[in-house]
Amino acid sequence: MKTLSDHVSALVPQLQAWRRDLHQFAESGWLEFRTATRVAETLHRLGYQLKLGREVINAEARMGLPDAEVLNAQETRALAQGALPQWLPHFSGGFCGIVATLETGRPGPVMGFRVDMDALDLNESQAADHLPVREAFASCNAGMMHACGHDGHTAIGLGLATVLKAMEDRLSGTIKIIFQPAEEGVRGAKSMVEAGVVDDVDLFTAIHLGTGVPAGEIVCGSDSFLATTKLDVEFIGTAAHAGARPEAGRNALLAAAQATLALHGLTQHSGGVARVNVGVLQAGSGRNVVADHALMKVETRGANNAINDEVYQQALRVITGAAAMYGVESQVKLMGAARSCTPTQPWVEFIYQQAQQLGEFSSVLDRKEESAGSEDATYMLERVKQRGGQASYVIFGCELAAGHHNAKFDFDEQVMATAVKTLATLALNQAQFSVQR
Amino acid sequence: MKTLSDHVSALVPQLQAWRRDLHQFAESGWLEFRTATRVAETLHRLGYQLKLGREVINAEARMGLPDAEVLNAQETRALAQGALPQWLPHFSGGFCGIVATLETGRPGPVMGFRVDMDALDLNESQAADHLPVREAFASCNAGMMHACGHDGHTAIGLGLATVLKAMEDRLSGTIKIIFQPAEEGVRGAKSMVEAGVVDDVDLFTAIHLGTGVPAGEIVCGSDSFLATTKLDVEFIGTAAHAGARPEAGRNALLAAAQATLALHGLTQHSGGVARVNVGVLQAGSGRNVVADHALMKVETRGANNAINDEVYQQALRVITGAAAMYGVESQVKLMGAARSCTPTQPWVEFIYQQAQQLGEFSSVLDRKEESAGSEDATYMLERVKQRGGQASYVIFGCELAAGHHNAKFDFDEQVMATAVKTLATLALNQAQFSVQR
Amino acid sequence: MKTLSDHVSALVPQLQAWRRDLHQFAESGWLEFRTATRVAETLHRLGYQLKLGREVINAEARMGLPDAEVLNAQETRALAQGALPQWLPHFSGGFCGIVATLETGRPGPVMGFRVDMDALDLNESQAADHLPVREAFASCNAGMMHACGHDGHTAIGLGLATVLKAMEDRLSGTIKIIFQPAEEGVRGAKSMVEAGVVDDVDLFTAIHLGTGVPAGEIVCGSDSFLATTKLDVEFIGTAAHAGARPEAGRNALLAAAQATLALHGLTQHSGGVARVNVGVLQAGSGRNVVADHALMKVETRGANNAINDEVYQQALRVITGAAAMYGVESQVKLMGAARSCTPTQPWVEFIYQQAQQLGEFSSVLDRKEESAGSEDATYMLERVKQRGGQASYVIFGCELAAGHHNAKFDFDEQVMATAVKTLATLALNQAQFSVQR
Amino acid sequence: MKTLSDHVSALVPQLQAWRRDLHQFAESGWLEFRTATRVAETLHRLGYQLKLGREVINAEARMGLPDAEVLNAQETRALAQGALPQWLPHFSGGFCGIVATLETGRPGPVMGFRVDMDALDLNESQAADHLPVREAFASCNAGMMHACGHDGHTAIGLGLATVLKAMEDRLSGTIKIIFQPAEEGVRGAKSMVEAGVVDDVDLFTAIHLGTGVPAGEIVCGSDSFLATTKLDVEFIGTAAHAGARPEAGRNALLAAAQATLALHGLTQHSGGVARVNVGVLQAGSGRNVVADHALMKVETRGANNAINDEVYQQALRVITGAAAMYGVESQVKLMGAARSCTPTQPWVEFIYQQAQQLGEFSSVLDRKEESAGSEDATYMLERVKQRGGQASYVIFGCELAAGHHNAKFDFDEQVMATAVKTLATLALNQAQFSVQR
Repeated sequence: MKTLSDHVSALVPQLQAWRRDLHQFAESGWLEFRTATRVAETLHRLGYQLKLGREVINAEARMGLPDAEVLNAQETRALAQGALPQWLPHFSGGFCGIVATLETGRPGPVMGFRVDMDALDLNESQAADHLPVREAFASCNAGMMHACGHDGHTAIGLGLATVLKAMEDRLSGTIKIIFQPAEEGVRGAKSMVEAGVVDDVDLFTAIHLGTGVPAGEIVCGSDSFLATTKLDVEFIGTAAHAGARPEAGRNALLAAAQATLALHGLTQHSGGVARVNVGVLQAGSGRNVVADHALMKVETRGANNAINDEVYQQALRVITGAAAMYGVESQVKLMGAARSCTPTQPWVEFIYQQAQQLGEFSSVLDRKEESAGSEDATYMLERVKQRGGQASYVIFGCELAAGHHNAKFDFDEQVMATAVKTLATLALNQAQFSVQR
Repeated sequence: MKTLSDHVSALVPQLQAWRRDLHQFAESGWLEFRTATRVAETLHRLGYQLKLGREVINAEARMGLPDAEVLNAQETRALAQGALPQWLPHFSGGFCGIVATLETGRPGPVMGFRVDMDALDLNESQAADHLPVREAFASCNAGMMHACGHDGHTAIGLGLATVLKAMEDRLSGTIKIIFQPAEEGVRGAKSMVEAGVVDDVDLFTAIHLGTGVPAGEIVCGSDSFLATTKLDVEFIGTAAHAGARPEAGRNALLAAAQATLALHGLTQHSGGVARVNVGVLQAGSGRNVVADHALMKVETRGANNAINDEVYQQALRVITGAAAMYGVESQVKLMGAARSCTPTQPWVEFIYQQAQQLGEFSSVLDRKEESAGSEDATYMLERVKQRGGQASYVIFGCELAAGHHNAKFDFDEQVMATAVKTLATLALNQAQFSVQR
Repeated sequence: MKTLSDHVSALVPQLQAWRRDLHQFAESGWLEFRTATRVAETLHRLGYQLKLGREVINAEARMGLPDAEVLNAQETRALAQGALPQWLPHFSGGFCGIVATLETGRPGPVMGFRVDMDALDLNESQAADHLPVREAFASCNAGMMHACGHDGHTAIGLGLATVLKAMEDRLSGTIKIIFQPAEEGVRGAKSMVEAGVVDDVDLFTAIHLGTGVPAGEIVCGSDSFLATTKLDVEFIGTAAHAGARPEAGRNALLAAAQATLALHGLTQHSGGVARVNVGVLQAGSGRNVVADHALMKVETRGANNAINDEVYQQALRVITGAAAMYGVESQVKLMGAARSCTPTQPWVEFIYQQAQQLGEFSSVLDRKEESAGSEDATYMLERVKQRGGQASYVIFGCELAAGHHNAKFDFDEQVMATAVKTLATLALNQAQFSVQR
Repeated sequence: MKTLSDHVSALVPQLQAWRRDLHQFAESGWLEFRTATRVAETLHRLGYQLKLGREVINAEARMGLPDAEVLNAQETRALAQGALPQWLPHFSGGFCGIVATLETGRPGPVMGFRVDMDALDLNESQAADHLPVREAFASCNAGMMHACGHDGHTAIGLGLATVLKAMEDRLSGTIKIIFQPAEEGVRGAKSMVEAGVVDDVDLFTAIHLGTGVPAGEIVCGSDSFLATTKLDVEFIGTAAHAGARPEAGRNALLAAAQATLALHGLTQHSGGVARVNVGVLQAGSGRNVVADHALMKVETRGANNAINDEVYQQALRVITGAAAMYGVESQVKLMGAARSCTPTQPWVEFIYQQAQQLGEFSSVLDRKEESAGSEDATYMLERVKQRGGQASYVIFGCELAAGHHNAKFDFDEQVMATAVKTLATLALNQAQFSVQR
């Protein structure tokens, strides 16, 4: 009988092939049309039951969706690049999510694994020393690049599906593998949670590769994510000739300037980290015109949900007040959100134990102090925990050519096999977890 | 028969005596208790009909009133300094206004003359070269000084009353001399207008001495006053320990800082001069406490009433919005107001003609470009004009020891006789004005 | 002998043809390549002596020049649209100025006339009721439109050249017609002044059509232009991840916000109108990144040069200080400038007298209170006056389809003939002016 | 032989007497004239060697000193309230520090204990239910109150001196008891450190009572103090009449408003807590005057010295920049400072062990998460550690009538005997510590 190692070893070339194909046709958030059709086709051929598009994505809970024009153009582009027409209609309009289910028929818990599929809005480096250039799989889509490793995540998800299907008779309970769109900007997870995709999950695991964790190391229960809210703020005033009729204007630019200064003063909190950033401000149309429009791209963060919510509520108050000061209108549009979330200790310990036994890691950690980013898989962890399940967030260390979100980002592809093996082990051994408890 | 010149010449020592007594016992706005009783007694002895206190001052229309404690303390002080007990009850509580009326019994218009009585909140210079010091009539009240010449105005009012009474048989119609409190800070005139004191006036003249006009010159229709509104703004927040619980605070100081910056940006107007000044800001209680209180002393001005009103309305919007930004409460208290107002041309021309004929002036002007101050007699001009009357504002030039509002301000007392003679001339010759028209 | 009226009447179809050709191939400031070659060719054929390009434009004194890439691309575009290759090299690189001189050989003063040639950065309306659409001469250049009438001005300049050449034997002295680039944004005149083009001019006249003056009216000495300075301000800071390392950033956006609020508070001046506008603010690259860059498009204005200079100096101080507050760098680039300038009274009166005699106008005014715009011909007026010459700025009223700078702007072409006739009259009758003095 | 318990029991009435005397004659920072003379007299009578005033306080290192007028007036007041004339000259001018030394003559380490003596600038409650009122020892000095328990600390210091002297023959090494002025506002400790008072200390212990720790509990190594800097900032501009000559002013109030907003935006730091507070802002002299003066009372804090220093440096940059924006001058005056500091683990453990053995405490903790205050004894801990010594900060829990800095603050006096016993135990048993190591 073939062992897990045998299965995974055999899969290595395929993992690379999947990953490089996805990398080449990088698609950013809500636009993973080609990606999703390819993923669906593969899972379908493996024999998984699929739920697709609107079945797994709540339309209203989507955040930061591109406008209809972009969605249409990118869908057309995807088709030209090999998106599979038989699957595309499911994802049309920004619904590029997939949940693949394997019912073993044997009693046991529902295990959920989540991977994300989207690229970043970034031009990939064309430098000759950049491996994807050298080996000819750099992104062919201008302004889109897999610079955070989600191409690897998706390949890991497909690899995990392959292995588990092959070893189905040694599994019990149910396996759900969740392929999420639009993690960048923390826009997509909430819409899948609101569609109920983790409502029946007992044992949940989300993953990431890299993030500064060195090769050979695994972090079994990463817990340092900041809760965050992303918002676009518009101030709409009235234009006027600045020389001739200044008093006739309602100055949206001044409202934005005031709001900006006040927002950056909201970050003192005894409960822990509180952050605000007005990252982008675009206002006005001409030097000699009272600005009638301003757009601010803002984010709040907090060490926990309560702090972030508090800062966010104060930010709304600041925005409304600043608009009132100048007699302009303000509009706030939610563009993304994520939660802070602590993994459940028993599940972290089980992963820790399994990782140690696996012999693949030179270092196994339960948690690690990390820089303050955000991740919307936290919505899934939170929902699973609310319903009594176990949940964790696992990081697989690996060597990086350059940091995440950098135009020369690239990762050592070995990590994919390691991740598949580890996740499959959790599935194969989950019965031990139940016994331990 | 004694001429006007005879009467005025005889009055010169008395004018000086009145002025110096008032100067020595300087009383600032709404606190003219001793002053008002002395004025009332003099007018009563001359035989004028008097309306006093609440008869001529609308309580609700008073602005910038000191608090009850100050009013009581100063009334007590006034009594100790020679306020006349028989008149004091009329003025108690901040009602130090007097209207003296002389009915000639002969048909003719109602002529109104307005003088003001209040001193400034200022310590008078103790320098040996300051004439009031040298001649021993410097203010004995700390923090109060006649540094704008209203002592002279009051003496002129009494002198005019004296002369007109003496020449009563040559007058026709009715003479009203209005002694107003609290001109500084433009706080008192509106309350007299609201009490109706100029509602029956056909020919109205307000006066000022000095203001940069050189000795020997008269400006017959000063029209360069800015409309203005004075407001005190309070922001009331919530204190908190700035190190331990910063998020628990609602920061009134930050609201005030934001409001200040926005207010100073409200001054571009195609219609003419627009001004805002946050002259005073006092906020907070301790270095390590989130400030729960801020007080701003603010003024708006405009080349005309419409501009000032527009700026004022925008200022209110700014204040409310800034409070909303920080979740604090705001309160606006009206502390003073004045109007822009153009004198009526026929009356200015009549004054011009009379001044030229009088032979007292080396220069007679109808108007003069002046620096942008404010004056609340404008409320009276406005009301008189609204009711069809004629109105002007006359400035009598004179030599000054130092500028108005300066601790070493002093004026050449000669101007008082000149002013009495000029105003009396208007009264004696008013029949010509009616004929001319 | 043909009269002036005969000449002008004959010229009407040509004026329209010129204007419509220029309108169709609208070119914005410093990019008037096709325009300039066509103007040069016409003037050359008429027999004028020409000075071109660098001869009449001081390279260093040009303000708000587009970058080299734009200059090159637009020159290429111009060539494709009919720019004449024999003239183009003179104007290459942003030197699209022409001075045409006619030496009569008879003694007399140098008369200078100035017209401007540039379009606005604006998309012309495509509406069917827009006359240039209906009659097929709407701009074929995206983002460029003659929406201020400079196409008409250039046609007037050519018409004037035609008529004066035809009537050369009735002239004395010297005629200079100046065709200026880049008046929009007040960028071009100074560079012509610095090249000395008006240094020998004794009698100078600049013109504009429209500007709210009704058809049939002429303003002979417009004097209400505000002095102005246009500046682009950049703040350059340091980017950092706003969640993970906020303290590592140097925030250019916050510096810009502070500067904006302070700049808008610089507008109170006892000397007259003072204006500041931050019309455009563009800052930051991503929501979660501390902004390392901000660009502000700013203008100052003043009722006179001294006020504008004072406000401008204070603006520089604000900008430097705001940069220092945040440890960022600031760079200020001068993008345009104009002066306030009063026409010389004798020349205004002569124009007034000539206009009245001409019988073309239903209303002849010497000046008119107008809204507060700016115009860089003021640099030319100022220089002429400094050297003892006479100078004025004349406005020819006409009916407009929509206001200046509006996408549906259009003017009644009749005004061109009126203008040519008036200006030619000044040239023909200038001897009377000298006699009068 | 009398035990420690015997000695302490006998001392209880005296502890209360001392404390209540000090409470009644509360003296705030740098003004502890009466207090210091009484402490000196008691220590002298006990037989301690004393160093006083300038011997233990570096004049230049004092921060936040009241001005000379206040110092003189309060010294005079102190004399009238029973300050001892023989000791007063040592402390005159704001040098109210004392170090009392007991040389046992036996070899051993130098042990240092630090207590503070100053009251707060606060009016004590006059409520009948306030124990100091009921038992007639409420502060007789208006605006000064022992509302933080330093009266108790001083009494503990005197009690410790009494007990150790009585048990001198059981001690070895040297005992130094440090009585510090001006802990409130973190102003005094640095000046004693700079005078070298802890340079020879091997084992250092500073104490506080209360601070939210419940009765019966002791915290042996409090480590949650924030580093902090206190600064007064002045902006000095130029006054001008706001209506008549606004451009002539240089507005200090606007500079302060800008600085305030920027300062409150300096508090995002990945290294831990960063805080800024502009707690007080006082600006301007009159509503209609451009403000020529502003005073801000500011503090920065940081989780560690590096963060606080970084924020402080940025604050200086903000202040200088804001002044430059408005052409005003800025002056920064250091008013206080404290360090973050971790106790040395071995000494904390020894205290922990001794406290447990003592049997006086229901709860013995090594550390406790506390709210984020600051304490300048940290300067002493830091210096002792830098020189290789051991140091800790001990908190004795006790019941409070109201929180610290509250007008009704009062503490259960029992805590004083407990503290004396604990500290004396450390001294008596220190030899065990040396052995353990």
